[in-house]
Amino acid sequence: MNQRADAGQLKPGDLSYGDFRHWHPSEIRKAIREGRWSRVTHGLAPGYVHANLAILPERYAFDFMRFCFRNPKPCPLIDVTDPGDPEPRRAAPGADIRTDLGKYKVYRDGKYTGEVPHLKDVWRKDHVAFVLGCSASFDDAMLDAGIPMQHLEQEGGRIPVYISNIPCQPAGIFQGPMVISMRPIRQDLVVKAVEVTSRYPIAHGAPVHIGDPAKVGIADLAKPQWSVYTPLKDNEVPVYWACGVTPQSIAMAAGIPEMYTHAAGWMFITDLRLNAASIISG
Amino acid sequence: MNQRADAGQLKPGDLSYGDFRHWHPSEIRKAIREGRWSRVTHGLAPGYVHANLAILPERYAFDFMRFCFRNPKPCPLIDVTDPGDPEPRRAAPGADIRTDLGKYKVYRDGKYTGEVPHLKDVWRKDHVAFVLGCSASFDDAMLDAGIPMQHLEQEGGRIPVYISNIPCQPAGIFQGPMVISMRPIRQDLVVKAVEVTSRYPIAHGAPVHIGDPAKVGIADLAKPQWSVYTPLKDNEVPVYWACGVTPQSIAMAAGIPEMYTHAAGWMFITDLRLNAASIISG
Repeated sequence: MNQRADAGQLKPGDLSYGDFRHWHPSEIRKAIREGRWSRVTHGLAPGYVHANLAILPERYAFDFMRFCFRNPKPCPLIDVTDPGDPEPRRAAPGADIRTDLGKYKVYRDGKYTGEVPHLKDVWRKDHVAFVLGCSASFDDAMLDAGIPMQHLEQEGGRIPVYISNIPCQPAGIFQGPMVISMRPIRQDLVVKAVEVTSRYPIAHGAPVHIGDPAKVGIADLAKPQWSVYTPLKDNEVPVYWACGVTPQSIAMAAGIPEMYTHAAGWMFITDLRLNAASIISG
Repeated sequence: MNQRADAGQLKPGDLSYGDFRHWHPSEIRKAIREGRWSRVTHGLAPGYVHANLAILPERYAFDFMRFCFRNPKPCPLIDVTDPGDPEPRRAAPGADIRTDLGKYKVYRDGKYTGEVPHLKDVWRKDHVAFVLGCSASFDDAMLDAGIPMQHLEQEGGRIPVYISNIPCQPAGIFQGPMVISMRPIRQDLVVKAVEVTSRYPIAHGAPVHIGDPAKVGIADLAKPQWSVYTPLKDNEVPVYWACGVTPQSIAMAAGIPEMYTHAAGWMFITDLRLNAASIISG
């Protein structure tokens, strides 16, 4: 499984994957903060919730929070910070959202403008960070249930991502179609894949569609809008889950003046155990 | 079970309880809106989610929504309207939050100032309505599981409510202790009561405490801050659940200039089936 973390350059002083993988998330975040780990996070801290990040000005935060609430499959909300507070106190006490991811994307006026290694210089007291669940979290649960995850055997552990024709529930300025990911699942394991993932609503939960790509507005499965196509084997069915790219896509479409997110594959690793956090009784 | 709905005066033209109880929520709301039902809602529309209501100016809405998110047991969020939109589109499409409850409480500068029969005259375009789950919703589930609910056999179906010493997670201006309700549960059914209620996170979920009232800051069980005491029988244990009075108590403590809520026992009846809405996969 070492190939999961092979994306990104190994630099002198980097930790080796074997040592690092089973450290506590707070130690992994510290290593990332100090520049000792500069690769993607897939496969690190198994059993802990990995998360998407979106940072917006407070002015848009109530609209965005309602959007997440109304669209829990693409936007499973794990934490929301107080304006100006860089610590996600619910998901990772002691963490600093400005430094604890390896790479961030910057958006201006709805357009992607580049990546930065931290947000220390741009953080303001009206910034609000939204921490959103990520489907990488349930890959281990699928493997535990005996469901092979083809994409994990490939470089970087990436899955193809598409803009669907499924409308999100709008909230204020935020509206648009749901972005979805596809995993090839063996025909006889499709029901089990639904059962397993439905237990993890904070990691996008149950699929949004099974089978025919045209039904969810995908013209050509081999041409995803993001990431790389995972070809289907003869005995496999395409199964689609709501994707954490949705909030980025929606916020870009709304043309908001400023947004920061994680870079693809460089996730925020929380202190939450997936199984415990999936018990939603509060 | 007719005694459940006996609080409030029966007026000429009121529907009789037997006819009315099993109507669809949209029809019940219409009857309430038209003044044909002017009693409490306990026992109506069994199997549907009954809800608490809090209406605040938009200026406080993001703080309040974060408060609910961080305190899901006292404040299980079912719907949040867009500013100025009186229709809770997720919980009850077609409903009007200004008219579809029988009685509303008015608060000014953190103080209760009286009750009104509707909010048509005071509603503004910066008002945001929060619809929050209510424990009345799970009484039927408890009865189905064979757990006697002593308070349902009494006038008005009310349960004693206390200010606890359990701190809520603060959010912006909102902070303070959790308000909790107490139900006497037969000793041999306490585990079952936890199992049943833990399935309904949108109706306050599992208890917050079992047993000794002093442990949660209650000096005298016979003296609740709200409602009436239900004396314990010899074989009963006091079991405590987070209570929907919490957000009112917190908002009053914050001294916000303006708030409207449901009146005690006069709940908002949603179109959501309790069992379906408790599947949280989005």
